[in-house]
Amino acid sequence: MSNIQGIAASSGIAIAKVYPLEAPDLSYNKSKIDNPTDEVTRLHEALDVSKGELEKIKAHTKKTLGDEHAEIFSAHLLVLSDPELIQPIEDKIKSENVNAEAALDETANMFIDMFKNMDNEYMRERAADIQDVTKRVMAHLLGVTFPDPALINEEVVIVADDLTPSDTAQLNKQYVKGFTTDIGGRTSHSAIMARSLEIPAVVGTKEITKTAKKNDMIIVDGIDGDVIINPTEEQIASYKEKMENFEKQKQEWAKLKDEPTKTAEGEHVELVANIGTPDDVEGVLNNGGEGVGLYRTEFLYMGKSQLPTEEEQFEAYKSVLEQMGDKPVVVRTLDIGGDKELDYLDLPHEMNPFLGYRAIRLCLERDDIFRTQLRALLRASVYGNLKIMFPMIATLEEFREAKNMLEEEKVKLAEAGTDVSDEIEVGMMVEIPATAVLARQFAKEVDFFSIGTNDLIQYTMAADRMNERVSYLYQPYNPAILNLINNVIEAAHAEGKWAGMCGEMAGDEIAIPILLGLGLDEFSMSATSILPARTQIKDLSKKELASFKEEILSMGTADEVVAFVKEKTK
Amino acid sequence: MSNIQGIAASSGIAIAKVYPLEAPDLSYNKSKIDNPTDEVTRLHEALDVSKGELEKIKAHTKKTLGDEHAEIFSAHLLVLSDPELIQPIEDKIKSENVNAEAALDETANMFIDMFKNMDNEYMRERAADIQDVTKRVMAHLLGVTFPDPALINEEVVIVADDLTPSDTAQLNKQYVKGFTTDIGGRTSHSAIMARSLEIPAVVGTKEITKTAKKNDMIIVDGIDGDVIINPTEEQIASYKEKMENFEKQKQEWAKLKDEPTKTAEGEHVELVANIGTPDDVEGVLNNGGEGVGLYRTEFLYMGKSQLPTEEEQFEAYKSVLEQMGDKPVVVRTLDIGGDKELDYLDLPHEMNPFLGYRAIRLCLERDDIFRTQLRALLRASVYGNLKIMFPMIATLEEFREAKNMLEEEKVKLAEAGTDVSDEIEVGMMVEIPATAVLARQFAKEVDFFSIGTNDLIQYTMAADRMNERVSYLYQPYNPAILNLINNVIEAAHAEGKWAGMCGEMAGDEIAIPILLGLGLDEFSMSATSILPARTQIKDLSKKELASFKEEILSMGTADEVVAFVKEKTK
Repeated sequence: MSNIQGIAASSGIAIAKVYPLEAPDLSYNKSKIDNPTDEVTRLHEALDVSKGELEKIKAHTKKTLGDEHAEIFSAHLLVLSDPELIQPIEDKIKSENVNAEAALDETANMFIDMFKNMDNEYMRERAADIQDVTKRVMAHLLGVTFPDPALINEEVVIVADDLTPSDTAQLNKQYVKGFTTDIGGRTSHSAIMARSLEIPAVVGTKEITKTAKKNDMIIVDGIDGDVIINPTEEQIASYKEKMENFEKQKQEWAKLKDEPTKTAEGEHVELVANIGTPDDVEGVLNNGGEGVGLYRTEFLYMGKSQLPTEEEQFEAYKSVLEQMGDKPVVVRTLDIGGDKELDYLDLPHEMNPFLGYRAIRLCLERDDIFRTQLRALLRASVYGNLKIMFPMIATLEEFREAKNMLEEEKVKLAEAGTDVSDEIEVGMMVEIPATAVLARQFAKEVDFFSIGTNDLIQYTMAADRMNERVSYLYQPYNPAILNLINNVIEAAHAEGKWAGMCGEMAGDEIAIPILLGLGLDEFSMSATSILPARTQIKDLSKKELASFKEEILSMGTADEVVAFVKEKTK
Repeated sequence: MSNIQGIAASSGIAIAKVYPLEAPDLSYNKSKIDNPTDEVTRLHEALDVSKGELEKIKAHTKKTLGDEHAEIFSAHLLVLSDPELIQPIEDKIKSENVNAEAALDETANMFIDMFKNMDNEYMRERAADIQDVTKRVMAHLLGVTFPDPALINEEVVIVADDLTPSDTAQLNKQYVKGFTTDIGGRTSHSAIMARSLEIPAVVGTKEITKTAKKNDMIIVDGIDGDVIINPTEEQIASYKEKMENFEKQKQEWAKLKDEPTKTAEGEHVELVANIGTPDDVEGVLNNGGEGVGLYRTEFLYMGKSQLPTEEEQFEAYKSVLEQMGDKPVVVRTLDIGGDKELDYLDLPHEMNPFLGYRAIRLCLERDDIFRTQLRALLRASVYGNLKIMFPMIATLEEFREAKNMLEEEKVKLAEAGTDVSDEIEVGMMVEIPATAVLARQFAKEVDFFSIGTNDLIQYTMAADRMNERVSYLYQPYNPAILNLINNVIEAAHAEGKWAGMCGEMAGDEIAIPILLGLGLDEFSMSATSILPARTQIKDLSKKELASFKEEILSMGTADEVVAFVKEKTK
């Protein structure tokens, strides 16, 4: 039995056998063969089996996560049918009399090296695709099992160094009871996906892949961040109880599904959800979301070979707005660059992409892209309660310029006789320290603020949240962050505007009492966090929490803040 | 005649012939040779000429810029004498009967590729050295002129895409009257070096290398950022007058050399200098500096194959302190990482180095390195007026931990009977937004603040100042920056501490009146900016400027601020 502590990334308890998702051993011997025709047949058999698997994974992903996520696998299937890749492998087998493994590996590597070294993100992405699929084909040639999370058909807990978005996309909730990884944090892709799929997860354990072996029993406690390998009978019993309590608690939460969110004294605050695609709306409604606080429109642009058309975008926005009825939907305009690159835009390689050419900075320069999105949004506005916000605003000039483009497109549409809502609120993300500091000036010109804490924290602390060596500085409770948040909320209220938050912090149990005390109006979080948050808020007195404000804001360290909040809310 | 506008990087006017510093054409034909022995001789002749040139450049650099800068060329000389590189070239000539050019190029490229692909910064640096020196040898083999700024012996203006630190290190003020480049900004290496050498420079012209041809006459106006190619007689006359006026102004400035810095109402503010090595102290004293506001200790660690010893550091600190007498010397502890890598530390490659593992973050973990520096500083403290500050502090805990290590080393030294000053002030850089926001809390624990605007601006605006696509966001006059600076100064004064500034902003003509109005106590700048700043401050009323404070701090944009300051101080 051994205990490992990690980061609680997605609530719930999983108890099952370990399924290590690890890279298979694909080493091979290059050898001379006597019958090239047989060898080519062997190659095509491996290709066919691989294609069959990819079709299954694609269908599965489409069903569970929607069309957009399934697109990755269409790209992989194309590679396996590409004669420009397959023909040279056959030629090599025939002309050099080598085995299929060597021909596949050498040919694929040639293409991978060639594409990798191109100064073009799209081609580098193709290199990654080829690498992925040739591994699968190689595994079949060697008769080695290739791990496919989508094909798991017994109850397991996945143990891996990390899960890629495409791994996570394939998880089948029926069988995958939970997962745990060596690396990652609460805001990493896999953690966000786990919460959205409601699969218990503990990430950042540093050592789980070294300790947990295939078929070991394992407990993953996504509530407290604990992992237990080969637990005792007693522990299993105790965690089964914890699991049942969690299920009961979920049922308690579910009772609040159709209730508005009220504090102990009955004051309403708004709990809304972050979404990425129209498919996510169902989860928002099932979890009692009072609206969408952040619709990330990047997914429309990703995993494609070209920009989405105005029509595609219009359909997506319309779908979300219609599904949400009269509930508010805050759409964030395109936020790419940084860690989110678009292959077909061929953005320059940057030394510090988080401090680089992204989001509104790119949209104001590439206003062809931006205006297309704005038109699609304006046209969709008549189908619901649309609010628009701009990401990565640093200066008043940028906000003015973006808003001006929106107004111009509105006028053009009106002139063309297209209906546009007159009640679209236009706001901005507050995620750059400069705008939090200058919130009073911005508040005069915006309709609302939405504080993006993920970025705001990393810029304010000057620490890349993805960099493990400085991740200790990603401190949501640092009094510097709380003072900036307070400044934003006060500035908004002074001008009669509202302030929301759409970073991970908005759904955090320790942060919620603080934010309530600071007067935050809208909390946008993972859909699955809404009911727990509503339950928590029911018992919190906003007035009492507000009385702690000055004391908290004058504290020196995050630790002091956490200790104080725990003491006051226990 | 054509006019080009760039960025004024170093004051003064230069009028001379264009000297294009461009990469020479080093293409060659690979050919079979009949007499390998002759070819090897030809190789050695080219090697010897190259060595002779590098020795000259090294001696020149040592004289003008000191030992540390000259070290680059020691490394280059080592490469040319390395049998592991030279022997394979000879072997190739003899065994393959190819010409020396081909043998040199192919062998060098093999090593360069090998070193480049190693996951080790030190080896990658060696690849760059080999590339540099083999180019020089190749030029001699081909009989092509290899541009050597150090060997220029007539009056010229250098025109280049960019100047590397080693190019700039070689500039001989006697002949190089100025330079102008396509890329770079006021805070790029070459701009800072130009100011320190007092060579007029205009950088970031985008197109100067396309427009200016060898031997064209050119005027570089480093005061206003103008470049004129093939000026008219009239223009030459007018710029000669401007040059004379500038010289006269410099003489005016010189009169204030031994005066304290006083505002119009006679209030004293401190004008001190930024330095990198003990050799820089002479310039500080010649320019009337009242102290050293920032001693960057990184140069002690750079261009070396191992960490500097405690003794080496002690000698450097002692030298600066003794030369400065009772004038204050603020030493910043090691700030590496980010754009400043140390080969021998083998730091991890980071996605966003500016938001990464650097400065105090590294020193607290590698406290062996840090404590060595602290001991050297403590031992040197008895030789002058030492103040110590820590870079990149983000949290109170970091400051406390760093200060605690300093105290521990002090106790150990005292126990060993070593004299240490009792009056060392211990402060911190304010360059991370979190600390500017939380200045009131920090002010209780530090002896002083020094605001590092270069970094503070880039984090507050979330814009990499080295990235041209977002450099428009590097806005020293943005009201968000000014509000943070104000917060730091007010917090310091509330606790009876002093606040200084050591970024480029402290020496800026537009910023000085604003900073004076905000109550900044100490301005640390390039030594050559001290006398112009003292002259400017003489005519400024601190009281009047302070009366504009609230108005400036409530402005919305940098443009408003600049227009207001220009209006009020004209």
